[in-house]
Amino acid sequence: MSAVSVEAITGTDGARQRRAIAKAITLLESTRGDHRAQADALLTELLPHTGKSFRLGISGVPGVGKSTFIEALGLHLIAQGHRVAVLAIDPSSTVSGGSILGDKTRMEQLSVHPQAYIRPSPSSGTLGGVAAKTRESLLVCEAAGYDIVIVETVGVGQSETAVANMTDMFVLLQLPNAGDDLQAIKKGVMELADLVVINKADLDPHAATRAQAQITSALRILGQHGHPDHAHHDQALWHAQVLQLSALKAQGLDKFWDAVAQFRQLQTANGKLESRRKHQALAWMWERIESGLRQAFRQDPAVQQLLPQLIHQVEQGLVAASTAARQLLGLHSNGEKNARHPGAA
Amino acid sequence: MSAVSVEAITGTDGARQRRAIAKAITLLESTRGDHRAQADALLTELLPHTGKSFRLGISGVPGVGKSTFIEALGLHLIAQGHRVAVLAIDPSSTVSGGSILGDKTRMEQLSVHPQAYIRPSPSSGTLGGVAAKTRESLLVCEAAGYDIVIVETVGVGQSETAVANMTDMFVLLQLPNAGDDLQAIKKGVMELADLVVINKADLDPHAATRAQAQITSALRILGQHGHPDHAHHDQALWHAQVLQLSALKAQGLDKFWDAVAQFRQLQTANGKLESRRKHQALAWMWERIESGLRQAFRQDPAVQQLLPQLIHQVEQGLVAASTAARQLLGLHSNGEKNARHPGAA
Repeated sequence: MSAVSVEAITGTDGARQRRAIAKAITLLESTRGDHRAQADALLTELLPHTGKSFRLGISGVPGVGKSTFIEALGLHLIAQGHRVAVLAIDPSSTVSGGSILGDKTRMEQLSVHPQAYIRPSPSSGTLGGVAAKTRESLLVCEAAGYDIVIVETVGVGQSETAVANMTDMFVLLQLPNAGDDLQAIKKGVMELADLVVINKADLDPHAATRAQAQITSALRILGQHGHPDHAHHDQALWHAQVLQLSALKAQGLDKFWDAVAQFRQLQTANGKLESRRKHQALAWMWERIESGLRQAFRQDPAVQQLLPQLIHQVEQGLVAASTAARQLLGLHSNGEKNARHPGAA
Repeated sequence: MSAVSVEAITGTDGARQRRAIAKAITLLESTRGDHRAQADALLTELLPHTGKSFRLGISGVPGVGKSTFIEALGLHLIAQGHRVAVLAIDPSSTVSGGSILGDKTRMEQLSVHPQAYIRPSPSSGTLGGVAAKTRESLLVCEAAGYDIVIVETVGVGQSETAVANMTDMFVLLQLPNAGDDLQAIKKGVMELADLVVINKADLDPHAATRAQAQITSALRILGQHGHPDHAHHDQALWHAQVLQLSALKAQGLDKFWDAVAQFRQLQTANGKLESRRKHQALAWMWERIESGLRQAFRQDPAVQQLLPQLIHQVEQGLVAASTAARQLLGLHSNGEKNARHPGAA
């Protein structure tokens, strides 16, 4: 693979930029060792050009209308002069290798618009790996001057946390059905939400209004963090909101974007945006370190040789789990040492 | 430290057994390398004598009446011919080194009873480390023939998950205040509960009955796991229940123990008890492995030398988090290798 041109990515030639972005992301998604080294060099060169976009996370269960919402929102923003990138994390891709989200065919107008860039989910790997690649792609899009980067995921599994951990604002799309909220609370997704959007509100206005009241009340209790006295409503802090809209009819998008702008202004002024990004970057580093440590352990031949037997003995209650762990950790140290001996494979 | 006698632990001489248990647990809690090797040898010898108790996890916020409940329950069970061990995981001990829970002075009669053994929380370490030591202590108590082992924790932090992951049944104590339940749902504790006990129900019977109805309804929704059709109530499966009692007046303990017995019988018959224990043992092993990998990484001199600088660069957006992670992982491998060279310290 020839080197990716940083100048092409950060430049103004649209067609050339588009090709360079695609090439950069393909490089980032490669698992080859030499590609990883090139990717790291590229990322380090791109980093000074990143950080200027607003990163918007969007999640919701299948059927909630995410594609319609993102298509309508994207076109709305482009009409206001923005450039919009859409990335996706598809939790099913980590199992099946398939890639559903960010499919260009679902966003007909946005996908062909010169001011938009849509990239589907990396097609395989652990969720942590897919999230890391998406984060890196986000940086490429920022370097290319997309000032709004949307990262979408579907409301199943742990992918919402991954998206919330790489965006400035996390939006949860809900249907106007009561009962969905408790499921969202249960999975801990409601807590992640800076904004809850009740989509398809036009289909049943009464249900939508009921849902809005219920979710507002739930968010208030969730936001208490154990302090029953919430009389003190600090104006300098963002309090999660609930909005109704209809993406299909493009109703309520203005109100939605007003709320996003208000959030962004507040979080910039009170320093939360910056501290959130710093925290996210460090958490991402530690997540990648732990993933790397786990991978090296599981791929260690000495560990692989003894592991099945120890798993059996731990299951049968013949060896204590902590004893087995210490034994494997000891083997791993020795195994690592031997593997690096000159002459070893 | 002289060797701990397995025969003393599994024997019938009460005073000698009590001394041997205390000595064994002290050994397990030691961080010295040679003690760890002895502890592993002891655990492996004890394991054939373990697994015969019922492991009961109990959690609840401060003030809910855990000590009073455990004292009343313990004496009730001893009167029925059981031998009861009480262990504790105090999440505050991982910060302060202090040890609040399992304090003998809080259970006046139980703590001096010859058929009871009470051990406070290990006094320091990470939550994972404290949990691992408590799990090992639980095995010692089982080998000593305690047929009911209670592991208590306080309803703050992540310690409830640790306790639920080492017990056969997890009981959540609640006060008869509505509103507590949403906090428990938020923290994911309600989901862990096999049984919810509303304590101090005698103080406000109406509130207790209201809380019971609300929690029952919440448990039903949480138990749906996304399947709205819960008409099929499988008799072979346990469904989380809610009971009222007053530990102080020793009212409702019979009903409580009936529910526990029903749970135990059902979970034994349908195989869930055995599969839960196997799953717990393996999860415990992996948790200890990951903790060991993290510790080796953080204690690596090569990592320690570069880490502060890389953290700064990641926070400032000068190096991508994934690039920093790869760099540190590379250093760690080399550092480990060098540390093991003959002649190194």
